[in-house]
Amino acid sequence: DFIHALENDIKPAFGSSKNEFEKYLSNGIINWGDPVSRVMEDGNLLIAQAKASQTTPLVTVLLEGPPGSGKTSLAATIAKTADFPFIKICSPENMIGFTETAKCQAIKKIFDDAYKSPLSCVIIDDIERLLDYVPIGPRFSNLVLQALLVLLKIPPPHGRKLLVIGTTSRKDVLKEMEMASTFSAIVHVSNISTADHLMCVLDNTELFNKEEMQTLQRKTAGKKLWIGIKKLLVLMEMARQIEDSHRILKFLCLLEEEAMLDILVL
Amino acid sequence: DFIHALENDIKPAFGSSKNEFEKYLSNGIINWGDPVSRVMEDGNLLIAQAKASQTTPLVTVLLEGPPGSGKTSLAATIAKTADFPFIKICSPENMIGFTETAKCQAIKKIFDDAYKSPLSCVIIDDIERLLDYVPIGPRFSNLVLQALLVLLKIPPPHGRKLLVIGTTSRKDVLKEMEMASTFSAIVHVSNISTADHLMCVLDNTELFNKEEMQTLQRKTAGKKLWIGIKKLLVLMEMARQIEDSHRILKFLCLLEEEAMLDILVL
Amino acid sequence: DFIHALENDIKPAFGSSKNEFEKYLSNGIINWGDPVSRVMEDGNLLIAQAKASQTTPLVTVLLEGPPGSGKTSLAATIAKTADFPFIKICSPENMIGFTETAKCQAIKKIFDDAYKSPLSCVIIDDIERLLDYVPIGPRFSNLVLQALLVLLKIPPPHGRKLLVIGTTSRKDVLKEMEMASTFSAIVHVSNISTADHLMCVLDNTELFNKEEMQTLQRKTAGKKLWIGIKKLLVLMEMARQIEDSHRILKFLCLLEEEAMLDILVL
Amino acid sequence: DFIHALENDIKPAFGSSKNEFEKYLSNGIINWGDPVSRVMEDGNLLIAQAKASQTTPLVTVLLEGPPGSGKTSLAATIAKTADFPFIKICSPENMIGFTETAKCQAIKKIFDDAYKSPLSCVIIDDIERLLDYVPIGPRFSNLVLQALLVLLKIPPPHGRKLLVIGTTSRKDVLKEMEMASTFSAIVHVSNISTADHLMCVLDNTELFNKEEMQTLQRKTAGKKLWIGIKKLLVLMEMARQIEDSHRILKFLCLLEEEAMLDILVL
Amino acid sequence: DFIHALENDIKPAFGSSKNEFEKYLSNGIINWGDPVSRVMEDGNLLIAQAKASQTTPLVTVLLEGPPGSGKTSLAATIAKTADFPFIKICSPENMIGFTETAKCQAIKKIFDDAYKSPLSCVIIDDIERLLDYVPIGPRFSNLVLQALLVLLKIPPPHGRKLLVIGTTSRKDVLKEMEMASTFSAIVHVSNISTADHLMCVLDNTELFNKEEMQTLQRKTAGKKLWIGIKKLLVLMEMARQIEDSHRILKFLCLLEEEAMLDILVL
Amino acid sequence: DFIHALENDIKPAFGSSKNEFEKYLSNGIINWGDPVSRVMEDGNLLIAQAKASQTTPLVTVLLEGPPGSGKTSLAATIAKTADFPFIKICSPENMIGFTETAKCQAIKKIFDDAYKSPLSCVIIDDIERLLDYVPIGPRFSNLVLQALLVLLKIPPPHGRKLLVIGTTSRKDVLKEMEMASTFSAIVHVSNISTADHLMCVLDNTELFNKEEMQTLQRKTAGKKLWIGIKKLLVLMEMARQIEDSHRILKFLCLLEEEAMLDILVL
Ligand SMILES: Nc1ncnc2c1ncn2[C@@H]1O[C@H](COP(=O)(O)OP(=O)(O)OP(=O)(O)O)[C@@H](O)[C@H]1O
Ligand SMILES: Nc1ncnc2c1ncn2[C@@H]1O[C@H](COP(=O)(O)OP(=O)(O)OP(=O)(O)O)[C@@H](O)[C@H]1O
Ligand SMILES: Nc1ncnc2c1ncn2[C@@H]1O[C@H](COP(=O)(O)OP(=O)(O)OP(=O)(O)O)[C@@H](O)[C@H]1O
Ligand SMILES: Nc1ncnc2c1ncn2[C@@H]1O[C@H](COP(=O)(O)OP(=O)(O)OP(=O)(O)O)[C@@H](O)[C@H]1O
Ligand SMILES: Nc1ncnc2c1ncn2[C@@H]1O[C@H](COP(=O)(O)OP(=O)(O)OP(=O)(O)O)[C@@H](O)[C@H]1O
Ligand SMILES: Nc1ncnc2c1ncn2[C@@H]1O[C@H](COP(=O)(O)OP(=O)(O)OP(=O)(O)O)[C@@H](O)[C@H]1O
Ligand SMILES: [Mg+2]
Ligand SMILES: [Mg+2]
Ligand SMILES: [Mg+2]
Ligand SMILES: [Mg+2]
Ligand SMILES: [Mg+2]
Ligand SMILES: [Mg+2]
Repeated sequence: DFIHALENDIKPAFGSSKNEFEKYLSNGIINWGDPVSRVMEDGNLLIAQAKASQTTPLVTVLLEGPPGSGKTSLAATIAKTADFPFIKICSPENMIGFTETAKCQAIKKIFDDAYKSPLSCVIIDDIERLLDYVPIGPRFSNLVLQALLVLLKIPPPHGRKLLVIGTTSRKDVLKEMEMASTFSAIVHVSNISTADHLMCVLDNTELFNKEEMQTLQRKTAGKKLWIGIKKLLVLMEMARQIEDSHRILKFLCLLEEEAMLDILVL
Repeated sequence: DFIHALENDIKPAFGSSKNEFEKYLSNGIINWGDPVSRVMEDGNLLIAQAKASQTTPLVTVLLEGPPGSGKTSLAATIAKTADFPFIKICSPENMIGFTETAKCQAIKKIFDDAYKSPLSCVIIDDIERLLDYVPIGPRFSNLVLQALLVLLKIPPPHGRKLLVIGTTSRKDVLKEMEMASTFSAIVHVSNISTADHLMCVLDNTELFNKEEMQTLQRKTAGKKLWIGIKKLLVLMEMARQIEDSHRILKFLCLLEEEAMLDILVL
Repeated sequence: DFIHALENDIKPAFGSSKNEFEKYLSNGIINWGDPVSRVMEDGNLLIAQAKASQTTPLVTVLLEGPPGSGKTSLAATIAKTADFPFIKICSPENMIGFTETAKCQAIKKIFDDAYKSPLSCVIIDDIERLLDYVPIGPRFSNLVLQALLVLLKIPPPHGRKLLVIGTTSRKDVLKEMEMASTFSAIVHVSNISTADHLMCVLDNTELFNKEEMQTLQRKTAGKKLWIGIKKLLVLMEMARQIEDSHRILKFLCLLEEEAMLDILVL
Repeated sequence: DFIHALENDIKPAFGSSKNEFEKYLSNGIINWGDPVSRVMEDGNLLIAQAKASQTTPLVTVLLEGPPGSGKTSLAATIAKTADFPFIKICSPENMIGFTETAKCQAIKKIFDDAYKSPLSCVIIDDIERLLDYVPIGPRFSNLVLQALLVLLKIPPPHGRKLLVIGTTSRKDVLKEMEMASTFSAIVHVSNISTADHLMCVLDNTELFNKEEMQTLQRKTAGKKLWIGIKKLLVLMEMARQIEDSHRILKFLCLLEEEAMLDILVL
Repeated sequence: DFIHALENDIKPAFGSSKNEFEKYLSNGIINWGDPVSRVMEDGNLLIAQAKASQTTPLVTVLLEGPPGSGKTSLAATIAKTADFPFIKICSPENMIGFTETAKCQAIKKIFDDAYKSPLSCVIIDDIERLLDYVPIGPRFSNLVLQALLVLLKIPPPHGRKLLVIGTTSRKDVLKEMEMASTFSAIVHVSNISTADHLMCVLDNTELFNKEEMQTLQRKTAGKKLWIGIKKLLVLMEMARQIEDSHRILKFLCLLEEEAMLDILVL
Repeated sequence: DFIHALENDIKPAFGSSKNEFEKYLSNGIINWGDPVSRVMEDGNLLIAQAKASQTTPLVTVLLEGPPGSGKTSLAATIAKTADFPFIKICSPENMIGFTETAKCQAIKKIFDDAYKSPLSCVIIDDIERLLDYVPIGPRFSNLVLQALLVLLKIPPPHGRKLLVIGTTSRKDVLKEMEMASTFSAIVHVSNISTADHLMCVLDNTELFNKEEMQTLQRKTAGKKLWIGIKKLLVLMEMARQIEDSHRILKFLCLLEEEAMLDILVL
């Protein structure tokens, strides 16, 4: 009746998750440089370990990086690549207004489901949000924190394997909570920080024509910047609303404001 | 049955909101200068983006400025201009004495309703009040804060678009709570700070006659002041109760007290 | 059926309030000097505004002054002078041992009732007590605070007018809570601070005979003192229990102790 | 039916209180000196005021002094002297393990009962204990505090008079809580601080014989000491257990230890 | 029916307590020196006072000393010596996981039972544990604290007598909580601090033979040590597991580690 | 019916525990050096004491050491060695999302069960997790703490014996909570800190061939390192995923990163 369970209990779980997954993958991943490739490689190594090892049937990894650097999308992409029979995302979106106890139960349910499949992947997205963390105080749900601390240490039942991918913008906080060290590995997700990375992102869209791209390359060459891929995509979308003649100027202005780009001589 | 939903679920929602809206628009907007125009322009650009973009179906903007500077009225005006099929205001007025949980549910309900319409606008008015914020402590509802932090990041379902307009007098607090940075854009709403702006407001009412207006212009020319449009309207109304001969004097006295106007030589 | 409501719902509300009101007015108001007259004048101006204005249908005023300076009695007197169809006092007396939630509901109920009358006056007495404020901590009911902050900003429904009179001994605390600035106007209620004011109060009672009054005038002339009218009336009553010959001496002793009167040479 | 109420509701209340009262009076009051007489005189003046005055139908007095100085017994004695138709003691003894809300209700009930009698006396014993006060934190029941703050200000209904006697060992704390100033009068209860006072207490008992008394007088003459009457009575009782020959020595030892008496040369 | 109550209600209460008592007395008391004798003497004096005095029917004593110094056993021994018709121990053992309210009720029940017997003894064991005290914060149950503070002051009903024995390792904390001063007497329980005391304990057991005892005496003579009798008995038991030849060495090692004994030259 | 109880109540309890135990023992214990042997010896001594002694029927020991140093596995191994009729592990794994009260009850249940067997062993695993401890604040469940503090002091009923083994990574915190000193003995579990210990662990697996082992020995000889056995096993498993030629290099890199190994010259 294991086969039975697989068909009735696990497949549907995956099914519904699959739909949920598409959402996080809808805008796609632009490979704008080395930092992106490295995350994917580390992901693949951990997938291999989760699949192969007998002594470490629980593999846990934390994707950490600044807000909007692409952590959730990368976690979803790695999980999809792994192609495990059970994949589930544990996200604050589905727990708005939940009591601490309800949150714990919902999280525990996801892990209990995962333990039933021979090979599972659970994404714990936006951990600081799951913890109701706010820097004033600071305040957070200790009940949820303790649940996660324990769940990150329980090996799955004999014969099962589990890969857990967590994401956070506050590695510092997770360290203070003694959670960061509980993960088997920590992988850094970077903001875009060089003009080359920026041009690489722009190449992937049709916002500017060839000539404009050359202007942009000249204007930004050698400059330092600091912006998450998520925000960059928003700025590009704002620029798109502007009439053609002003678009490049507006884009550079927005970029200067948001990306801490040093002096732009236009 | 989408058409059906539109007719039964969304239209009425809008209907009742419309009545509620009139309330916030009843005194009208006086365009007393550049700061007012700029807010309206930024509003229009964001409406355009919300309508057009496919990659950023969620557009969020924060109107921030001193108490009584006109944030709520401007938010309502922008939302009305947008003329989306679904508009709803989420205001502390309707949640007096609510528990944290009840507040969360009420807020979530508004967003869930918005997700059902192809094009929606939600105003989150007076965010610090929704959060039960008080500077002593400080104290605030972390449950409501976390709900808003999550709701400001969830994209609407495939094919739907959502414009969220928040208002606050405490941008500093929202920054500390890591909420300010969650908005796609932040727009500043100004107090009245020059004599020209003041005269422009007075021009729009029939409180003083031509001669009095000239006196006022002479008395205030070149002075610095600092007053919100809301308070200014109250002072004008107080002055109106005074008999004609003393009105201008009383008005200048009140103004000096409330608007930090520097030395008034009468 | 508006007429019906007026007769059934509002009149009785006023009726019971009227009885309650007599209580606060039973000892009467002694006009012991300019500070008293000024409070009454300001009160009258605000009554006029509340009655006349269309653009500011909500007028709110805070009477603030030291403990026992006569705030509650003056608020009740102003409300009586206004002679509005609906008057209600919202006082901690009626909420002893209430939970925060029950307090909020009771307060909200008073405002909801007021909104039904075309012209209403609500007294929010002893705000720091309504808030369960204690300087140790400090502690207070944030739920009640937030309810008041919101209620002080909601304009009454179209066509209705509302005058709100608050009283407090802790303007400083209300400022910290960002509540003081929510009022349209703030009026100061003074302690008795000169010998003239004192003699004026004594003139209004028959505690001392003519000769004694002259002695008292001589003894106190030019002295500074600092005492609330409420405490002064208690001291006078204590002195009244003393036999005739010692009364004036006892009274001066008590006064020196309680009123920080500088050196009394007897 | 007022007469009816008096007979059915108030008399029994007094009856049961009377029994309770005997308890606090069982050991009697030793008038060991001026400080004791003065408390009784002040008490009598306040009783007179409570009975006579029309403008101050509520008289409140706080008996404050070190632990064991005799506050409760003196309060009970004053209340008995007053001989009012309604007397009730509100004491933490009867509220062990009560929730804050239950405490508030019990206290309110006592006052509500008192309001029904034309002339009433309520003792609020050991206020810091009623407040569940502990200096660590400090912590206390704000709900009970707020109830007391309000009850100490409400005048009894028209035609009724009420004397409230509070007792506390922590006047400083009650000041911080802004409760001390709410009382019409504050009366200090003293510890025994001179050898004369001590001898006066010993005179009232048969613990030592004439000769021993002379020895004690010689040993203690001119010494400073600091002890509450309650503790002194315990030490005397301890000494009584000792065989005759050692009793006076043991008593002086105990006294030196507990009463901070300066160097005893035996 | 008093006799009836005695037979039905009190005797069984005592009966069950007796069994409980045996537990605390099972290892016996070794009179290892003066400090032990003095505690027993003080105990006897207080028993006498509790039995004899009419004016102080409530006698309360606090046994305080370091952890494991023998407080609980000594309290039980004193209570047994007293041989009162009602003896009850109020210990945290029987209240694991109790809510604050449940604890208060359980404690109050013990006192209420005691009030029914003419002569009773109540042991309040391990007060800091009853209070759920932890130095971090510090945290403790204020509800239980307040209940104890009140119970330690209530005299038993007319004609009844009550001896209360409290034990604590944290006299300092009880002082801060203003509880220590509520006891009629405070008695110190000492750790073992001299070699003589140590030898006296060893003399009472058959752990070492005569020769070994002489070696030990030589090794420890004149050394300072600091260890509770409870811990010392554990170390002796550990040494007993070691084979004969190494036992004395192991014992001295353990002693040096745990008892802060200064340099042991072996 | 004692035999009956043994068969029905205790055996099954042990049975289920046995399965649970296998889990903690599945990876086995590698005796990589002296520190491991010493823990096992101390364990055996305590088992002997628990079995033999009449005066100390309760023996409690705390295994403390850095995260991942092998505390849980060693505790389980000692418990298994003891081979007592009743063994139970009290672990946070089985209490995720439990309320404080539920946790207390679950813990108390385990001890109550243990008291029924003549010879029992209870492991309290990961005490800081059972306490919901987090260093921010710090916060923890005082209810659970107090329950443990009491349970660690209660001797089992007459004739029964109990060995309690606790584990923790935060001895410092347990000291602050005054829990560490409640244990009869404290045993330190070490991280791997010398190259010899490391080589000893590698010898026990087939990850590297003879030649590679020699290279590793040369590279690490005389270096200091600091790593828990648990983490080391994970690194070895990661290295196993790498192709043969790079494995040794990858392993040394990982080791350098995680084990604070000083300069590795490759
Ligand atoms: N290389 C990339 N890595 C990640 N995201 C990318 C990349 N290229 C494009 N994207 C797009 O950028 C967006 C990243 O948003 P995402 O929500 O994953 O960021 P995040 O770091 O999780 O943000 P937050 O800190 O707010 O949780 C997505 O829309 C994704 O499709
Ligand atoms: N240019 C303007 N901008 C905004 N409000 C205006 C303007 N001209 C006139 N008004 C009037 O001024 C008032 C502004 O009040 P509003 O409640 O919008 O201010 P607010 O900033 O939201 O105040 P608060 O900080 O108290 O929430 C409204 O009555 C509005 O009709
Ligand atoms: N000019 C006056 N103004 C106010 N009260 C007066 C005046 N003359 C006499 N009184 C009497 O003085 C007393 C003032 O007491 P009231 O309760 O109003 O003071 P309060 O400031 O509200 O005190 P609290 O700070 O305790 O709330 C009343 O009995 C009132 O009848
Ligand atoms: N002059 C006196 N004043 C007060 N009490 C006296 C006096 N003479 C004798 N006594 C006796 O002294 C004892 C005083 O105890 P009481 O409980 O009244 O003190 P207290 O100040 O209320 O103590 P606590 O601070 O503990 O509440 C009583 O037994 C009382 O009978
Ligand atoms: N002179 C003595 N005084 C007290 N206990 C003694 C003495 N001699 C032997 N003992 C034994 O020493 C042990 C003392 O333990 P007990 O629990 O009474 O100490 P405690 O101070 O209450 O400890 P804790 O601080 O942990 O509550 C008991 O087993 C008791 O039988
Ligand atoms: N000598 C050893 N001592 C302990 N564990 C060992 C030893 N040799 C190998 N192991 C293995 O190392 C791992 C130790 O993990 P364990 O969970 O016991 O550590 P821990 O200190 O309890 O960790 P944590 O601090 O996370 O609770 C187990 O898989 C165990 O099988
Ligand atoms: Mg994310
Ligand atoms: Mg607003
Ligand atoms: Mg007042
Ligand atoms: Mg007292
Ligand atoms: Mg003890
Ligand atoms: Mg462990």
